[in-house]
Amino acid sequence: MKKNYMFTPGPTMVPAEVLLSEASPLIHHRTPQFSDILKNVGEGLKELFGTEEDVYIVTGTGTAAMETAIANTCSAGDKVICVRAGKFGERWAEIAEAYQCNTFNVDLEWGQSLSVDRAEKLLSEHPDAKALCITHSETSTGALTNVESIASLTSKKDTLLIVDAITSIGVHRVEMDKWGVDIMVSGSQKGCMVPPGLSFIAASERTWKHIESSASPRYYLDMRAMRKNWRKFQTPYTGPVSLVRAMQKALEMMNDEGLENLYERHRRLAEATRAAMEAIGLDLLASNPVNGVTSVLAPTGIDTGKLTKKMRDEYGVTIAGGQGHLKGKIFRIGHMGYVNGEDLVVCISAVERALKELGYEFEFGAAVSTAHKMLFGG
Amino acid sequence: MKKNYMFTPGPTMVPAEVLLSEASPLIHHRTPQFSDILKNVGEGLKELFGTEEDVYIVTGTGTAAMETAIANTCSAGDKVICVRAGKFGERWAEIAEAYQCNTFNVDLEWGQSLSVDRAEKLLSEHPDAKALCITHSETSTGALTNVESIASLTSKKDTLLIVDAITSIGVHRVEMDKWGVDIMVSGSQKGCMVPPGLSFIAASERTWKHIESSASPRYYLDMRAMRKNWRKFQTPYTGPVSLVRAMQKALEMMNDEGLENLYERHRRLAEATRAAMEAIGLDLLASNPVNGVTSVLAPTGIDTGKLTKKMRDEYGVTIAGGQGHLKGKIFRIGHMGYVNGEDLVVCISAVERALKELGYEFEFGAAVSTAHKMLFGG
Repeated sequence: MKKNYMFTPGPTMVPAEVLLSEASPLIHHRTPQFSDILKNVGEGLKELFGTEEDVYIVTGTGTAAMETAIANTCSAGDKVICVRAGKFGERWAEIAEAYQCNTFNVDLEWGQSLSVDRAEKLLSEHPDAKALCITHSETSTGALTNVESIASLTSKKDTLLIVDAITSIGVHRVEMDKWGVDIMVSGSQKGCMVPPGLSFIAASERTWKHIESSASPRYYLDMRAMRKNWRKFQTPYTGPVSLVRAMQKALEMMNDEGLENLYERHRRLAEATRAAMEAIGLDLLASNPVNGVTSVLAPTGIDTGKLTKKMRDEYGVTIAGGQGHLKGKIFRIGHMGYVNGEDLVVCISAVERALKELGYEFEFGAAVSTAHKMLFGG
Repeated sequence: MKKNYMFTPGPTMVPAEVLLSEASPLIHHRTPQFSDILKNVGEGLKELFGTEEDVYIVTGTGTAAMETAIANTCSAGDKVICVRAGKFGERWAEIAEAYQCNTFNVDLEWGQSLSVDRAEKLLSEHPDAKALCITHSETSTGALTNVESIASLTSKKDTLLIVDAITSIGVHRVEMDKWGVDIMVSGSQKGCMVPPGLSFIAASERTWKHIESSASPRYYLDMRAMRKNWRKFQTPYTGPVSLVRAMQKALEMMNDEGLENLYERHRRLAEATRAAMEAIGLDLLASNPVNGVTSVLAPTGIDTGKLTKKMRDEYGVTIAGGQGHLKGKIFRIGHMGYVNGEDLVVCISAVERALKELGYEFEFGAAVSTAHKMLFGG
């Protein structure tokens, strides 16, 4: 009997309770009933974002919310600093280029994060930059950026701080307001345990004057329409009823667990994963790792494409390979959202099994027992 | 016991089979399994669109696909003719204006449709128009446009014909290729019986040179990325796994019914609705009505906002009121997608009941018996 386990960095596993909420009979989106649900989901999102600003729901995946951030604040010719330390940092640059911005790209080795010193230097050298775009949790490498410290710099400048928090929301504590982030975006299919199709965006007060004046063409992603409609707890266009209901249930489950417990669970899962991989002699890619996904360098001679295919097709355990130039060279274990210690043991066991079958020599069982001890050893 | 009936022009009722498919355990979007599903859904969409071109799936509601059409073909300054005979015709103009096109708006009385003569005249007077944007089934008025005849004109010209088929796909036979439509868009939450969150777009071969050269900024909605990824049956960004699975089940159900039977069912539901309303002395708004929704003029002195609220809150039967300047003045009965004759009798009964309670004088029962006879009288 092969079960389907997903340890992917998105979409992630979705609890049956959330799937069944998604499957509720349809209601119309222009009803007080749906507005009540939107209001409720909006409150939950504000807590996850750490903001008093409204968090808008975009029907679209995370990239739609990223584009919403750029299209609403940056116009052709505006200078935009994009930190490219992975696939999703590169995406900021691609979107800004699509909008004919004058991008200044900061290329870091994949697995590294923008340092606060470098951020300070960049902001001094480019006082005319309209925005600095960074990635809180870079899903392609598993590296964490110190958003809090970088925001303490941008909040003293005219440069807006735009943050991709797609795989950090629901995994790491995020404090958009306290830190001073200007725009934060996220998506449903990561820490939030909901199928893909929803993304989220919030903007700081000072951002709105840019949103009002941006010359970039936009309609579906126009935040002015989102704000106007959100005042009545409505979406500008047809509301994604079933996914919003799924989100409502997921938020309820997250609140039942308690946000502090939820962040602590992710911290423990990440620590156990890292220790387990090191216990069988493998190196981690990220020097400052996130808690939602762990990137592991493959042993010499092992193609991670083969590893992930074997795990998925033979054991039913899906993890991710590398993206871009890291394709074949790393594997990524997602442990965000609906993942507990028991699940992680299953995953680590499957990784060991596949590595062994592919010819890697190591003490079979060392990773599983390390994870087991760290998770359940008290 | 109050059940929830939706006779709305979108979102529409979703079969339990489709809801349960949507609730299937998640799979990852970059897997052969999901590519197979996408391929299968793509084949079904091609049949509904009447095209050999690929139909791309956009994670977003219908408006996202409409914007995809404009952003990929029209650049700032391009002349775009927009036919505004309802809220969704107006949307074409709003999107084209957002993209700084030089819009030429053709305003028709709501409920009217663009005539072929008028289309011919417009195309001769504006040979420089990049596109003519029309609405096949105008949901806000229930009026049908003769796309086939208009396409026979545009296909001889350089002007592209862009068609909103959001509430006609799955309701009316559509022949994108045979008619010569250049871009056609639709959405999941109408005739397709799937919750909101997916939209669809296909482009004719001659459209691609415009897509390649459009200067409008776009990223999430870039059709070049859609085409490139579709070759591997992938989506450019995270695939909307659960909604695509719902779509697969809905297409299966539509094919089980048979497309000819499905179009015939909609024709009969629409005819019965129109006859039922006329039987109690009410007038219809559209002179050339669609088969997915029927717009009915309210009797003097009756506010349709009150009518629809009473029906929804007291009987559990949701229909729609009017939009824009028709708010309060018309009501709209949606009979598209997962609606059969039995359902329609429920709806007409509720309409009669609400009209009577609001003081309209008519022969109580005349609408229900008319619909019943037309649907089941053999």
